[in-house]
Amino acid sequence: MKRTLINELKENKETKIAGFIEKIRDTKYMIFVILKDKTGSIQISIDKEKNSDICKELENIIAGSVIEFEGKMVKSEYVKQGGKEFLPEKIKILSKAEASPLEDNANIDTRLDYRWLDLRSDKNQLMLNVQSALVEGMREFCYKSDFTEIHTPKLIGAASESGSEVFEVKYFGKKAYLAQSPQFYKQMALASGLEKVFEVAPAFRAENSNTNRHTTEFTSFDIEFAYIDSYEDVMDFEEDLLIAGLTKVKEKYGEKIKEVFGKEVIIPKKPFPRVKLQDLYKELETRYGYNIPTEDVGDMNAESEALAYKYAMEEYKHEFIFITDFAKTKRAFYHMRKEDVPQGYDLIWRGTEITTGAQREHRYETLKKQCDEKGLTKDVEFYLRFFKYGCPPHGGFAIGIDRLNMLLLGLSIKEEMFIFRGPNRLEP
Amino acid sequence: MKRTLINELKENKETKIAGFIEKIRDTKYMIFVILKDKTGSIQISIDKEKNSDICKELENIIAGSVIEFEGKMVKSEYVKQGGKEFLPEKIKILSKAEASPLEDNANIDTRLDYRWLDLRSDKNQLMLNVQSALVEGMREFCYKSDFTEIHTPKLIGAASESGSEVFEVKYFGKKAYLAQSPQFYKQMALASGLEKVFEVAPAFRAENSNTNRHTTEFTSFDIEFAYIDSYEDVMDFEEDLLIAGLTKVKEKYGEKIKEVFGKEVIIPKKPFPRVKLQDLYKELETRYGYNIPTEDVGDMNAESEALAYKYAMEEYKHEFIFITDFAKTKRAFYHMRKEDVPQGYDLIWRGTEITTGAQREHRYETLKKQCDEKGLTKDVEFYLRFFKYGCPPHGGFAIGIDRLNMLLLGLSIKEEMFIFRGPNRLEP
Repeated sequence: MKRTLINELKENKETKIAGFIEKIRDTKYMIFVILKDKTGSIQISIDKEKNSDICKELENIIAGSVIEFEGKMVKSEYVKQGGKEFLPEKIKILSKAEASPLEDNANIDTRLDYRWLDLRSDKNQLMLNVQSALVEGMREFCYKSDFTEIHTPKLIGAASESGSEVFEVKYFGKKAYLAQSPQFYKQMALASGLEKVFEVAPAFRAENSNTNRHTTEFTSFDIEFAYIDSYEDVMDFEEDLLIAGLTKVKEKYGEKIKEVFGKEVIIPKKPFPRVKLQDLYKELETRYGYNIPTEDVGDMNAESEALAYKYAMEEYKHEFIFITDFAKTKRAFYHMRKEDVPQGYDLIWRGTEITTGAQREHRYETLKKQCDEKGLTKDVEFYLRFFKYGCPPHGGFAIGIDRLNMLLLGLSIKEEMFIFRGPNRLEP
Repeated sequence: MKRTLINELKENKETKIAGFIEKIRDTKYMIFVILKDKTGSIQISIDKEKNSDICKELENIIAGSVIEFEGKMVKSEYVKQGGKEFLPEKIKILSKAEASPLEDNANIDTRLDYRWLDLRSDKNQLMLNVQSALVEGMREFCYKSDFTEIHTPKLIGAASESGSEVFEVKYFGKKAYLAQSPQFYKQMALASGLEKVFEVAPAFRAENSNTNRHTTEFTSFDIEFAYIDSYEDVMDFEEDLLIAGLTKVKEKYGEKIKEVFGKEVIIPKKPFPRVKLQDLYKELETRYGYNIPTEDVGDMNAESEALAYKYAMEEYKHEFIFITDFAKTKRAFYHMRKEDVPQGYDLIWRGTEITTGAQREHRYETLKKQCDEKGLTKDVEFYLRFFKYGCPPHGGFAIGIDRLNMLLLGLSIKEEMFIFRGPNRLEP
């Protein structure tokens, strides 16, 4: 007999179900088991006299064990859980659990030690499925927009962008490094003639910081495409991409997210508000008396991001806001500049930066000059060569999907990731 | 004006096109440019007298440069290339190329040095798009089958499966390792209550070998799902998954693949032939006089894989063949065994192994025993714990998508990967 999922059970029909025991309760005449699969849970009611064989099998069986039952689902007004119960005729113990060492009120670090048990909660199951749906929606949009999915190398020969915050790998007596982002390689794909590329892959940052939004390894959704007229095209595409992801999530899990996380999935309206950094500074001063500290002038920081969100909600009733016209000293050397202004943006959602995007400098001579200015030419010589033999104008951005999902559901990064990685966390 | 793709040009309509110069030819009265975008190429015919301004812009412009033209496409019986040409009125040089250092007959290693130029060929562009379509088709099938996409950590605390062939990473004064496969973590996902998971992500192997099918980094398409009855369920799913991928490729690029690579994309029929290792040995001996060498008894090797393909084609007219019943000494400790026979398989396609799949041992005590037997318990203690608190029966497999695409198109792994990585190759 094939297994039936719990939410697909039909009344009075011989079926087989299987799942984890959520609870087991032994009373005088009956044993009650709450069995849970990925679609829901049901009470299994076992008559001690009638089903003595089943009861014998259940001796020493505790929550967490995985059991298969054959029998029938029947309606029952006495059962609180959905007004139905399952009356088994056969049982098969698929996996016998030891008592869970994870207590209900454990702190996040203990929960991460036993992540596979922590993830069993309805909340965490939903979270993982929401992340999957988010990426599914975004990826579908890329395919529909005729993008090619690429897989760039994570082992690289040079310590890329900045040299700092890069993990070093022993590589057959030499040194290799782990890519912080596929930036250089997705641009290489465009120099090779692909016109639109995306990648969903791990990125690595050797940052020794413990915050609610940093991790040493995360999944990056990267976009790069050619023949753009300006970075406005990049922002337009990112709007559509996020709308596609959020729409997929809302369709599949909108109601459940409201129920479990108390969060509304809002499909943002186009265009998202766009504001120049200098104009934003003025608004933040006028409205909230906030002045950006000297060291951050030309850039954003955590406080101004939070306030930018407040401003976007007040002024535009919008959860997203694009900020443009950063100082060139605060942006990567490969951002194209016009009259010395980097042709890029940050996108803030719910008070946190989720993306840096830009039109890239594709002209070899100019790129080399900007690179020299930052003193990086030696490190990125291999990259500069991608532009020597012709490359179309292009732009792109990256979104950390864990950060996105974390903001969507109101979680910390430790709670959100399937398995978190930080300076002090390499296990499980 | 918005850019129009070359294969979407309409006769006599004012349009803008942009792409790489494939060839440029200066004659007495005319300059001819072959311009190429991702959809095709077209001849641009420039009258030196009438378009002297355009000609002036084209001075010192060579192949590889990226140009935008405005003008009209017209039909012309004199033009060999598709019987049409483009008559430009405006030109814009988007990127000026230096002469390509890559010669047409360069060997593979030189081609890899200039991979971004090497990839510009029609053949390589098609190859990258086929890889993308293959993964798209397989991933769509997973979504349709209600799988959750997960992203498991690549930085791990223990040297996983075997200890050998693992890259070591400097991790804040400690050691980390790069995951050889998401095997343990995809199983953890099932212990956590997800019932069907997949992942497409890089895997790392510190193998110091230079062959046509090995690489130190590759993209692995991983599948794991719960509540199976046997590894037959795993084989069934893999058949469907491959059919979905190949169908997508055939729909999108079947004709082109035939044209460019001379290869037929064959959608395999279900079920794929399945043969026990011992029976296969007998067939190989009877048919081809081949005896497996003593050290490989209980296992396959390159020669027997090639012959198994020959046998599958002769006996079943099928390109795929599943081989089961390997010796337990030759299989991973986590394969479930029945009467000492590992409940798993290899799948051979066109003479090369593309997958190892299995039902996994999900019962803690048995798993620990099998692990002890191979002397691995200390290394994988963290993994064994996933099974202590309940875990459903499950199985899965992995497919290296580069190997798959390489066999599909008849290439070596160096030719097939976007950017190849080997013991002596970390660049570009």
